[in-house]
Amino acid sequence: MAPPSQCHISNSDNGVHHHNAAAPVETDDTAVPTPPPHGSRLLDAEEFRRQGHQVVDFIADYYASMGDYPVHPNVTPGFLRRQLPADAPSRPGPDAFAAALRDVRGLILPGMTHWQSPRHFAHFPASSSTAGALGEALAAGINAVPFTWAASPAATELEMVVVDWLGRALRLPEGLLFRGGGGGTLLGTSCEAILCALVAARERKLAEIGGRRVGDLVAYGSDQTHFAFRKAARIAGIHRDNCREIATCRGDAFALSPTELHAAMQADVDAGRVPFFLCATVGTTQTTAVDPVRELCAVAATRGVWVHVDAAYVGSALVCPEFRHVMRGAEAVDTFSMNAHKWLLANNDCCALWVRRPSLLTAALGTEQEYILRDAAAEGHDVVDYKDWSMTLTRRFRALKLWLVLRCYGVDGLRDHVRAHVAMAASFENMVRADARFEVVVPRQFALVCFRLRSPEKCGGDKMANELNRKLLEEVNATRSGPYMSSAKVGGIYMVRCAIGSTLTEERHVREAWKIVQDRAASLLRKNIMEIV
Amino acid sequence: MAPPSQCHISNSDNGVHHHNAAAPVETDDTAVPTPPPHGSRLLDAEEFRRQGHQVVDFIADYYASMGDYPVHPNVTPGFLRRQLPADAPSRPGPDAFAAALRDVRGLILPGMTHWQSPRHFAHFPASSSTAGALGEALAAGINAVPFTWAASPAATELEMVVVDWLGRALRLPEGLLFRGGGGGTLLGTSCEAILCALVAARERKLAEIGGRRVGDLVAYGSDQTHFAFRKAARIAGIHRDNCREIATCRGDAFALSPTELHAAMQADVDAGRVPFFLCATVGTTQTTAVDPVRELCAVAATRGVWVHVDAAYVGSALVCPEFRHVMRGAEAVDTFSMNAHKWLLANNDCCALWVRRPSLLTAALGTEQEYILRDAAAEGHDVVDYKDWSMTLTRRFRALKLWLVLRCYGVDGLRDHVRAHVAMAASFENMVRADARFEVVVPRQFALVCFRLRSPEKCGGDKMANELNRKLLEEVNATRSGPYMSSAKVGGIYMVRCAIGSTLTEERHVREAWKIVQDRAASLLRKNIMEIV
Repeated sequence: MAPPSQCHISNSDNGVHHHNAAAPVETDDTAVPTPPPHGSRLLDAEEFRRQGHQVVDFIADYYASMGDYPVHPNVTPGFLRRQLPADAPSRPGPDAFAAALRDVRGLILPGMTHWQSPRHFAHFPASSSTAGALGEALAAGINAVPFTWAASPAATELEMVVVDWLGRALRLPEGLLFRGGGGGTLLGTSCEAILCALVAARERKLAEIGGRRVGDLVAYGSDQTHFAFRKAARIAGIHRDNCREIATCRGDAFALSPTELHAAMQADVDAGRVPFFLCATVGTTQTTAVDPVRELCAVAATRGVWVHVDAAYVGSALVCPEFRHVMRGAEAVDTFSMNAHKWLLANNDCCALWVRRPSLLTAALGTEQEYILRDAAAEGHDVVDYKDWSMTLTRRFRALKLWLVLRCYGVDGLRDHVRAHVAMAASFENMVRADARFEVVVPRQFALVCFRLRSPEKCGGDKMANELNRKLLEEVNATRSGPYMSSAKVGGIYMVRCAIGSTLTEERHVREAWKIVQDRAASLLRKNIMEIV
Repeated sequence: MAPPSQCHISNSDNGVHHHNAAAPVETDDTAVPTPPPHGSRLLDAEEFRRQGHQVVDFIADYYASMGDYPVHPNVTPGFLRRQLPADAPSRPGPDAFAAALRDVRGLILPGMTHWQSPRHFAHFPASSSTAGALGEALAAGINAVPFTWAASPAATELEMVVVDWLGRALRLPEGLLFRGGGGGTLLGTSCEAILCALVAARERKLAEIGGRRVGDLVAYGSDQTHFAFRKAARIAGIHRDNCREIATCRGDAFALSPTELHAAMQADVDAGRVPFFLCATVGTTQTTAVDPVRELCAVAATRGVWVHVDAAYVGSALVCPEFRHVMRGAEAVDTFSMNAHKWLLANNDCCALWVRRPSLLTAALGTEQEYILRDAAAEGHDVVDYKDWSMTLTRRFRALKLWLVLRCYGVDGLRDHVRAHVAMAASFENMVRADARFEVVVPRQFALVCFRLRSPEKCGGDKMANELNRKLLEEVNATRSGPYMSSAKVGGIYMVRCAIGSTLTEERHVREAWKIVQDRAASLLRKNIMEIV
C-alpha cells in the first residue's frame, strides 16, 4: 500500500473516469434481448478466493500503515463527488475489481476520517478487532437472513446464546437474560434499542389508560441524555412538548436527579398527563455522567413508568468488576442496551438490547403473516422469532461476530482491553492536572477526559474561555499527524473531549497527543487573547 | 471443508465445551489488578492477514460445497443452545480463532438455512456476490462511522454518488436524485425506509393541521402491503384503527384499486379524520402485485397525502427497460425504496431510500447537538449529514459495498443477472402450466411463480385444496437435496411460492425442483385425499 503521503487524489490511471466513456446510451426499448447464460462469475468460489485474499491484504496493509494517515482529511465538501462520473459503468472489464481497490486506496481512503487511527480520540471509539472484522466478513459471506427461527435456526439460537454470554460477562441482572426469563437481541444501534423500548412502554401504558391518549404520554430524560432519546420519542409520536429534558448541574456531575425527576412527574400528573418512559443513562455521551439507577427506578415505580438504561458506551466497561457499582439497582430496569461496537471490539454495528419481559416487546412490535413459513419443527415450541423483537424484518447475522469476539478474546481479554484504555485515560488526566494552565472539567470515570484551557486571569468569563478552547481544538485537530478530538458543551462550559478507545492506541500516542495540546495552547496564549477570540 | 453430509453436530474436539472448564469463578472484587500492557494482538496487521486468509478460504469452500447442503436443516428448537456452554470463555488459548472456525463448520453451518443455496426458492432472495460480500468485509475492516460529513467525508460523498448512480440505473425520476434536487440514502431495510417516510409525512401533515391531532391521522395500504407498513404505522403512533388495509381481489391481480382508495379516503374525511400517507407497492411480497402508481398518486394528491412506493423486491428489476412500465407516474411520488440486498447482489443489508424533498425528511428526523463537531471545512456548505436522514446515528459504510457492486458488474451485468432469473422463472412457469394437475395462481411478472396443485375433482373446495398444498409444500421441503420454497395465502387461496433469485441457481436446479414437486404431488394424489388433509 502506498504510504498515505503519496495518496494524492488523482484521475490518472485509476479507471474512475475511464468507464465514463462507456456510459450507457440506451433507449427505453422494451424488447427483451435473449439473456446470456447465467454466469456463475458473480459468486464463483475461486474468484471469491482470489479477490478475497486481495481484500484481506488490502485491509492488513491499511492497518499496518494506519498511524501514517492524518486522522481527519483536509478536504472540502464536494471533493469526491467532483471526481466520480455521473453514471455507473455499463459493462466493466475483467480488471474492474482490481481497479476499484486502487480507487479505494487512491481516492476514498485519503478522504476518510480514520476511526481506527491510534490518534482518533473524538466522539466515542468504534473499536475494531480482527475477530470483529472477520466476524462481519464471515456473516456477509454466509449472508443469511435470520428473521425467524426457521429462516435460520442456528443464527437465531447463537444470538440467544451470545446475548446471555454477554449479559453474564457484564453481570447484568439474571432477569434480563433468557436464563432468567428475560432475553436479548442484537440490533444496529442504541437509537433502535431506545425506540423499541419506548414503543413497548407506550403500548403497555396505552393498554392501561386507553389507546387514544397518546397525546397525554410524557417521556423523561435529562439534558444530557443522548439525542437518540428525543429522536425515538419524536418517531414514536410523543408530542414534542411531552419530552422532558430535566436540567442537570455540575454539582451533581451532570447526573439526573431523582428529586427533580419526581417533581417533573408530579407536575405532569397534576396537569393530567401520564408519565410512561424514563431513559436513564449510565455514561452520558458528553461527559460519561452516570444517572443513579436505583433511585430513579424507585421514582419511576411509583408511576408505573418503564425504565430503559442506555449504557451505549459504559456498558462495555461492565466486564470489569470495578465499574459494576454504576449498575446498582438495575434489577428493576425494564430494558438495558449497550453498543458492543463502541468499546468491546465488535465492529460496527452491534447494539445489544435486553428486556425483562420479552412479551411486552413482541406485543408492541410483533406481527404475524401467512407467507412466513413457520417451520413444522418449530410448531409447539416457544421459539424466538427475532423479527418480533425489533423494528425490522431483514436483519444480519450479528451474533456470529459477537460470538467470535467472545470466543477469541474471552472475558479476561476484554477486561484487559478496557483497563488498558482506562489506564491511558488516567495517565492523560494526570498530565492535564499537572499543568496549571488547564483544568479537568468533570472527574474522569472511564476512558474519556473532559478538559479545558483556563482563561488567562485578566480575561475571565466563560464566553471567553469557550472561544479560547474552541480555537484550541481547531488548532489541535488541524495539526498534521496530530490527534483528533471532539468537544462538548455542558452547563455553559465548552470543553475538549479526549476519548481513548481505539484498539491501536498506545501510551505513546496519548503522550504525543498531550504534547500537541500543550504546544498549541502555549502558542495561543502567547497571542493577545483579544485577537484569538 | 468437510462435505455437509459429515457435518454431524459433535462435541468431540471442537473446543466448545472445552472452555467451559475454564469458566470464570470470580468474585465481584473491586480491587483493580494492574493491567497488562495493551497488546496490539487485537488488531495486529499480520494476525489479521493470517486469519483473514483463513476466513476467505473458509467462505470460498462454503460456496464451492453449497449445493451439497440441505437448504434447510433438520433440527429442532434448542439444538444449538444445548450444545454451547453457559458462559463465554475467560482466557482462550492462542488457537481460539481456528477452534471457532471449526465450530462454525461443525456446529453452526449444519444448523443454518442456506440462503445462498441454488435450491433456496423461499421468501425473496438475498442475492450474494463476490463484490457484495467483499464490500461488506472491506467496510467492516475500515470500520468508519459516517454519521456526519465530517465524521467521514469520503463515505458520505460516496453514498451520495452511489445512490444517484443506482437511481439512474433504475431510471428513477430525476427529482428523486441529488442531481434533480432530491436525494437518497442507504439504510438497512425497507422497514426503516417506510418508517422514515411515514414519520416525515406525519410531521408535514401535523404542521398543517396542528401538532395535537396525531390521533386523527390515517395511513393507507392494501391487504397485500408488507407488514413493514403496519409495523411502521404502529411504531409512529398511528392508531391501530387508523391503518387501512384496503382489500384487493384476484380480478385486479391483487393490486390496490384507486377507486377503493378514493372511497376509503372520502369515508375517513367524512368522519373527520385526516389522510396523510399511502404506501403503494410495486411488487408485493406474496405475489409481486403491482399497484398502479400514477392513478394512486392522482388520488393521493387530492388529499395532500404523501406517497411512498415500496419496491423492495421489484426495484432491482428496474435495471431492465422491459420492467420500467411498472413505474409510470412515479414522478409524483414523495419517497421510493428498494432493497439492493434482495436481487441486486449487494449482500444483506442495503436498502436505498430516495426522497423528493430531503428537507422534509431532515425536518422530521434531524437533530443538532453541540458535541458533534461540525468540521470547519463544512461550515458554510450545505453538506449532507446522514444522521438526519434516518432513525439512527451510528451507521455503516454501506456505500462502499454498493459502489463495488456497480463498479464490478456494471448496469449491463446486473441486467443479465435479473434477466437470467426471470428466464428461469418463465421456464418454471411453463412447466407448471404444462401439467394439468397444477395451476399458476397469478400470472408471473418477475421471477416469482405462485402455483398450486388443483384439488382432485371429486373433492372440491378451497379448504381442501389449501390443505393439500400445505401438505405438498411440507413434503417438498422435507426432501433431502430438494428445493426449499415458501407459501402465501391470498384471497383465501393457499399457494406455493417459488422465488428464483439465488446467485448460484442455474436452469438445472429449477428443473430438478419442479421434478420433485411433481413427484411429491403424484405421491400425494395416489393416497386417499381424505387421509391427507
